[in-house]
Amino acid sequence: MIYLDNAATTRPFSEAVETVRRTSAEDFYNPSSLYPPARALKAKIERARETVAAAMGVRAEEIFFTSGATEADNWAVFCGRKNKNGNIVSTGGEHSAVYECLTAQKNGGAKVALAPLNAYGGVSADKFLELAGDSAAFVSVIHGSNETGAVNDVFALAAAVKKRNGKTVFHSDGVQTFCKFPLALGGSGIDLYSVSAHKIGGPKGVGALYCDSKLKLRPYIYGGGQEGGARSGTENAAAILGFAEAVKIYTDRYDAKKILEISECFIDKISALDNVKINSVPKDGVPGIVSLSLAGVNAEVLQRLLAADGIFIGLGSACASSLRRNRVLAAAGLSPDEIAGSVRASFGIDNTLADAETAAKKIIEKTELLRSGKIG
Amino acid sequence: MIYLDNAATTRPFSEAVETVRRTSAEDFYNPSSLYPPARALKAKIERARETVAAAMGVRAEEIFFTSGATEADNWAVFCGRKNKNGNIVSTGGEHSAVYECLTAQKNGGAKVALAPLNAYGGVSADKFLELAGDSAAFVSVIHGSNETGAVNDVFALAAAVKKRNGKTVFHSDGVQTFCKFPLALGGSGIDLYSVSAHKIGGPKGVGALYCDSKLKLRPYIYGGGQEGGARSGTENAAAILGFAEAVKIYTDRYDAKKILEISECFIDKISALDNVKINSVPKDGVPGIVSLSLAGVNAEVLQRLLAADGIFIGLGSACASSLRRNRVLAAAGLSPDEIAGSVRASFGIDNTLADAETAAKKIIEKTELLRSGKIG
Repeated sequence: MIYLDNAATTRPFSEAVETVRRTSAEDFYNPSSLYPPARALKAKIERARETVAAAMGVRAEEIFFTSGATEADNWAVFCGRKNKNGNIVSTGGEHSAVYECLTAQKNGGAKVALAPLNAYGGVSADKFLELAGDSAAFVSVIHGSNETGAVNDVFALAAAVKKRNGKTVFHSDGVQTFCKFPLALGGSGIDLYSVSAHKIGGPKGVGALYCDSKLKLRPYIYGGGQEGGARSGTENAAAILGFAEAVKIYTDRYDAKKILEISECFIDKISALDNVKINSVPKDGVPGIVSLSLAGVNAEVLQRLLAADGIFIGLGSACASSLRRNRVLAAAGLSPDEIAGSVRASFGIDNTLADAETAAKKIIEKTELLRSGKIG
Repeated sequence: MIYLDNAATTRPFSEAVETVRRTSAEDFYNPSSLYPPARALKAKIERARETVAAAMGVRAEEIFFTSGATEADNWAVFCGRKNKNGNIVSTGGEHSAVYECLTAQKNGGAKVALAPLNAYGGVSADKFLELAGDSAAFVSVIHGSNETGAVNDVFALAAAVKKRNGKTVFHSDGVQTFCKFPLALGGSGIDLYSVSAHKIGGPKGVGALYCDSKLKLRPYIYGGGQEGGARSGTENAAAILGFAEAVKIYTDRYDAKKILEISECFIDKISALDNVKINSVPKDGVPGIVSLSLAGVNAEVLQRLLAADGIFIGLGSACASSLRRNRVLAAAGLSPDEIAGSVRASFGIDNTLADAETAAKKIIEKTELLRSGKIG
């Protein structure tokens, strides 16, 4: 089996799986209880918070565990706009977890403007800054695109935004970049940053929101007052400890150079095919993400044929669930036909050059078969 | 070790822990992906949904998985009030996950009224119905109190509320009653019902909201459109499957009669002590929950002494995290001194009569020690 859908979810590290198992079975206490083993579990959660904070270059008390990046994004968007009359500026390249919140805000009467993308799915910095101007109350810019891997320079954008208006709140969805890029968020002007565990070898159902301590964010989920009162609900201790374990292992094992080599090998091999359009520039983006459009091919059929040979490849965003139209690729200027023929290979730390070669060979073979009209 | 804090969280069944482990390790796919093993995982989630639905007497499409009951309660309260000008009626016995949402609604301008409690923590039905009248837009009544175990007849209350105004939305927090009481929610007039996995031997970090299909609830967490568009975020497949496994095992092994016997044995033994007030009537409530107030005792110190002997007992709601004042016991008419001396023993399906006897003996011993002034 060759798994090439790491941008959708990764295979968890066996150590993280074991941490979740052991914590669930042995440390099953409610971390808010006050007897010693529950307090000890709470202390482990605090150490996990330090691990996640260190990976972002922030302080532990600025990290809030959530049920995943989607919740973190919702929290940021719905609670980050302090000035309820102020406008919102974002990009055409946001993940649905941000985009759908913006849509809900818009339906609620907010003014929302989205900056356009370049052909590789990155935001046009000039257009974005022009839209943000000096009056935006809240802005959100995805750090690495889950569709094409394009990386936006959120540090430069945050600095520019803050220079014009120090009160503008800056959020970034960092799901595809966390533990892959050096992050020194503290003092960067980025106020809010959302991450997920299951994209870096951790368990599903847990993520985190970084919130600059200067920004007092109201809770999105109220109740027993866990997470310093900011995010209630019995702490998902096992998943949080598994998350921290994954952060350590992923950071240790992730080799951007090796993954870039795999992506470039894949692009090189696939380029032997006629009428293939590469929508990614891995050397300037998330190194493992390669989006390509195969003219005259139905990507869903191609995905099925590849799966029958044990190769699992993405179709734009798996997170988009039953949505068929790919909003981000459309914003990057792809035609409906190009989108219909788009697949996404996302290489993870388990993949090898041989995986890239085999996958390219099989994609070429299946594409030629489909184009010949003999199948599909 | 004698664990008597099952109302805070239960020890998960080894089968549920193994399901979580196996799913994480082997079925690690994103359930929204379209290749066969991801689709197979999605199908398992749908079977889990059927299991949870059957335990509530509702249809599978009326069950929405969440990150826990706290999220489910927030979703119900914030999105359940369709008529934004209509008032909200609830009780003084709600869990913080509901109460704090009501407070937030009140701070946002909503009119919120709370019906008083009787001495055992149950709501006064007459007063509640009087407050609800025919104009309440949204009402929320906890099914079983996490503090005293008092069970409110939410079925009768829902029928009465709906008779006066069919448009009133009825929510109940069912965390302490789910899988312990027969639930035929479909057609009952209860529109929304929140449950948690980790109170019935399942994993932390997962719960569900039942929503009557006639009620179109807007999402609380937006994004990729999972859970039929109602609750976005990559499905926490492992936890969902572990949850369903726990529902089956708990329902199978839960013996209300046996647990009631344990609670009554505990009450019988503890009554040998002077100045002990029993705040629960287990035969009329959740069979395993016993709240008691020990005059002249600091419950936190007692808890610590018991823990040193390997007996883990609750202090009011562990979910109330760092909150020291017990709002629900106060609403049940307990004095500040009574509250300061209150502990909660909550017996689960692993407990035995011997546990109750040992715990009662130790509580008597430590209480006498504390009252003698020799310690504490």
